[in-house]
Amino acid sequence: MKSIAPLLALYKKIVMLGSVNAVIGWDQETYMPSGSIEFRAQQTAFLSELSHSILSGKDFRNALSPLIDFATETINPAITDPIQQRMISEAHRDWKFAVSVPSSLVSELAESTSLAQHEWQHARKTNDFDRFKPVLDRVIRLTYQKIDYIGFAENPYDALLDPFEPRMTVKKLDPLFSELRGVTQTALKRMASVEHPPLPVQHFDLGRQRWLSDDLLNRMGFDLSRGRLDVSTHPFSTAFHPTDSRITTRFSATDLMDNLSSTMHEAGHGLYEQGLPIHYFGTPLGSSMSLGIHESQSRLWENMVGKSPEFWEGYFPILCGQFPELKAIDWTTFYQFVNHVSPTLIRVESDEITYNLHILIRYELEQLLFSNTISTGDLPDAWNQKMEAYLGVRPDSNANGVLQDVHWSIGAFGYFPTYSLGNLYAAQFFEAAQRDIPALSDQIRGLDFLPLRDWLKTNIHQVGRSQTPDELVETVTGQPLSIHAFERYLNRKFTI
Amino acid sequence: MKSIAPLLALYKKIVMLGSVNAVIGWDQETYMPSGSIEFRAQQTAFLSELSHSILSGKDFRNALSPLIDFATETINPAITDPIQQRMISEAHRDWKFAVSVPSSLVSELAESTSLAQHEWQHARKTNDFDRFKPVLDRVIRLTYQKIDYIGFAENPYDALLDPFEPRMTVKKLDPLFSELRGVTQTALKRMASVEHPPLPVQHFDLGRQRWLSDDLLNRMGFDLSRGRLDVSTHPFSTAFHPTDSRITTRFSATDLMDNLSSTMHEAGHGLYEQGLPIHYFGTPLGSSMSLGIHESQSRLWENMVGKSPEFWEGYFPILCGQFPELKAIDWTTFYQFVNHVSPTLIRVESDEITYNLHILIRYELEQLLFSNTISTGDLPDAWNQKMEAYLGVRPDSNANGVLQDVHWSIGAFGYFPTYSLGNLYAAQFFEAAQRDIPALSDQIRGLDFLPLRDWLKTNIHQVGRSQTPDELVETVTGQPLSIHAFERYLNRKFTI
Repeated sequence: MKSIAPLLALYKKIVMLGSVNAVIGWDQETYMPSGSIEFRAQQTAFLSELSHSILSGKDFRNALSPLIDFATETINPAITDPIQQRMISEAHRDWKFAVSVPSSLVSELAESTSLAQHEWQHARKTNDFDRFKPVLDRVIRLTYQKIDYIGFAENPYDALLDPFEPRMTVKKLDPLFSELRGVTQTALKRMASVEHPPLPVQHFDLGRQRWLSDDLLNRMGFDLSRGRLDVSTHPFSTAFHPTDSRITTRFSATDLMDNLSSTMHEAGHGLYEQGLPIHYFGTPLGSSMSLGIHESQSRLWENMVGKSPEFWEGYFPILCGQFPELKAIDWTTFYQFVNHVSPTLIRVESDEITYNLHILIRYELEQLLFSNTISTGDLPDAWNQKMEAYLGVRPDSNANGVLQDVHWSIGAFGYFPTYSLGNLYAAQFFEAAQRDIPALSDQIRGLDFLPLRDWLKTNIHQVGRSQTPDELVETVTGQPLSIHAFERYLNRKFTI
Repeated sequence: MKSIAPLLALYKKIVMLGSVNAVIGWDQETYMPSGSIEFRAQQTAFLSELSHSILSGKDFRNALSPLIDFATETINPAITDPIQQRMISEAHRDWKFAVSVPSSLVSELAESTSLAQHEWQHARKTNDFDRFKPVLDRVIRLTYQKIDYIGFAENPYDALLDPFEPRMTVKKLDPLFSELRGVTQTALKRMASVEHPPLPVQHFDLGRQRWLSDDLLNRMGFDLSRGRLDVSTHPFSTAFHPTDSRITTRFSATDLMDNLSSTMHEAGHGLYEQGLPIHYFGTPLGSSMSLGIHESQSRLWENMVGKSPEFWEGYFPILCGQFPELKAIDWTTFYQFVNHVSPTLIRVESDEITYNLHILIRYELEQLLFSNTISTGDLPDAWNQKMEAYLGVRPDSNANGVLQDVHWSIGAFGYFPTYSLGNLYAAQFFEAAQRDIPALSDQIRGLDFLPLRDWLKTNIHQVGRSQTPDELVETVTGQPLSIHAFERYLNRKFTI
């Protein structure tokens, strides 16, 4: 009578609809002809509504209600298998979120963010915050309503964090991010005077860059029989199933690292998806754990591996094989080029140190917004002041300031912190990998990345969603999440 | 009380699910990594089952029942709008088909055809009909059951024809195809002695071939902002909406016409989809009319335009622009090369004349099968005898004989006739276009194809499914479907 089967059958449908929606989303960003964008939006909305109607429908509630007490959130004691208990609590979590926000508000948010995204594109192009302000204001007001429906224990912002990073709160984040700010600013001061070493090549053939991408994917063990690399305006990763993980990159003839970093970053995400527990596919435990954990996988490969001295000592000869003019410099010069530190106005162009300062600014502004301390109109000035205070540079325009990122227009408040969390998780996981694989540095120098990939698969990917991020960090590293590993990493790498 | 709205709302869902399924089907044939075929099959089956459960569910029946009397198939007289009447009758047609076959049989057929397709691939490679025979036999037995559930007025084979070519019957087809056989065999005898003119080029650069494909698409008015051309093993066309029509081709370095014919053929299908009535999208009238009508559009462009003397007089200089070695011959020699007639063992490699004989053989064998005149084991010999009798060539193996086509393994009995029907419709439509556009020959010679495309859009594409194929032929040509236009076409083109 206490079977979990009906719940799992409904949950599987939701996962299948999501996987199909991901396929058409991938197509939209890669191959879809421009003239069908309107219909594609209809297809996406149709699948999302279908999925939402199953999750918030009475069948789902009826499948869940014998398994968990809604008032106390206690799982029926007749369920003794810890895996089943976990499946129930995760399904309950998803359900609670889906039924907490009324469909009318979901529709209103969908419509207003669609409009806001459109207005944001124009506003950014024409450097016109005033044009964006009223639609952004509406998105913020609706997000306030969403917060009220979702509810929170201590801080309204917690309701925004939780969907992206389960169980993350302002109380946990504030001290972490405060320490991160100090550590980062110290490192920045130390490195700011180091000069940019120039490269002896200005033009990088795209075909040879593509060869390097494919080479890196093969070396990283990204399985191209269960995934693809394509080209898109903004690199991204998506997956439909552990057997179908799609990533993209982009090529710039003048900026070699744009492609190499993007490829390794997205392949980090892609490896996570290829490594998810296939036996849990379709259940609440089969998916990735959180955005922060996902980002830890991309940043670990992009930065801790792909910008390390060991990597460039090993890979520079291969790079020179494609671009022989680079033989005019040695690998250490190239390594310095790759790791050059310099405050910039734009987050996505920033280095490993200043990146986190960009995130902290957004985190602090979002908190000020949702504690009613500042209003939409105050954002441009508040942004510029924080840029000057934290990075020492002041945006010359709102286009290069408050208007630079898409996230707020799509209502993704609470999302930015997961980028910095990703860096912290990555550093802590990487230290644990170094502990468990004593030869790791030599392996990276020898371009043998498979032991690291296998370690990540065993310790992180295969866990799926059967732990929380906090539990995972404790299990893998023996320590709770902290700033220390990242601090050690920065101080070791960025010294004069 | 007699609103058609609830019916249309449910119908729209079925169309949306079909459109999404078409996207993932396109992806499967173009970019999907090989290792995810199993999961893709699950996604496809999931969407098909969801769609079938809506169409055969009680909500759909309840939406339909006030609008039409199920016993007499009379539309409620309160519905007076002919468009609404048509929508109801087409929706009822789809519903009747969906509920006639029990889900258990649908599943059994899906499973057995999946297995049969797998076995067919191996059997074809190893020339082993005996390996294929038991699974094919099971598919045929299940198809027998399907016929009984669908029902038929006169001939069991009618139940197989109707899903592909609505309202087509053996009684209508037999005399047509009997005449077609006579006409075709006469033309074949006349042309068999004409020699094959050799080409002065043996290798055709793929990039230049791609340029020609794009050039042809542009000239034909295939809108690349609402469609794409990709590459796949077997060229095909699919569409998700009039704003998203996808076609594929393939390139052979030694066979120039493989790509050019495929491109024009698939673009003919693609133009049909781009020209469908967008205001009817999602209703029972928004889709294409039948497989035969669809094939008429591809064959009209591929053969009546793309293999005409006018076309090659105009296009040969452009071809020579890409392959200057061809200047060693004149356009009439190339035209003869393109239209060379010679009996072959393989349908998809055959010329315009013998193609229909390949179809007639399959049509006759299917009829013999489903009237219990022959059994599965008799197929190879029966096939070879008919090949010898109709085409004068005897297959050297079953791989080049009865095993050459995928259709029977996927249970698509009743499908082949639509290929020849496409040729008959195409000839009759093309005569009507010549009547309505007196300058058509000159326009084709001048490579100005847009008047023809517009004529096809207005007279055929825009009709959607608001007429039957029979009605459409009468409306457009003023005559019922017959062999005559095709006969005149063959006799004019294939003379010595």
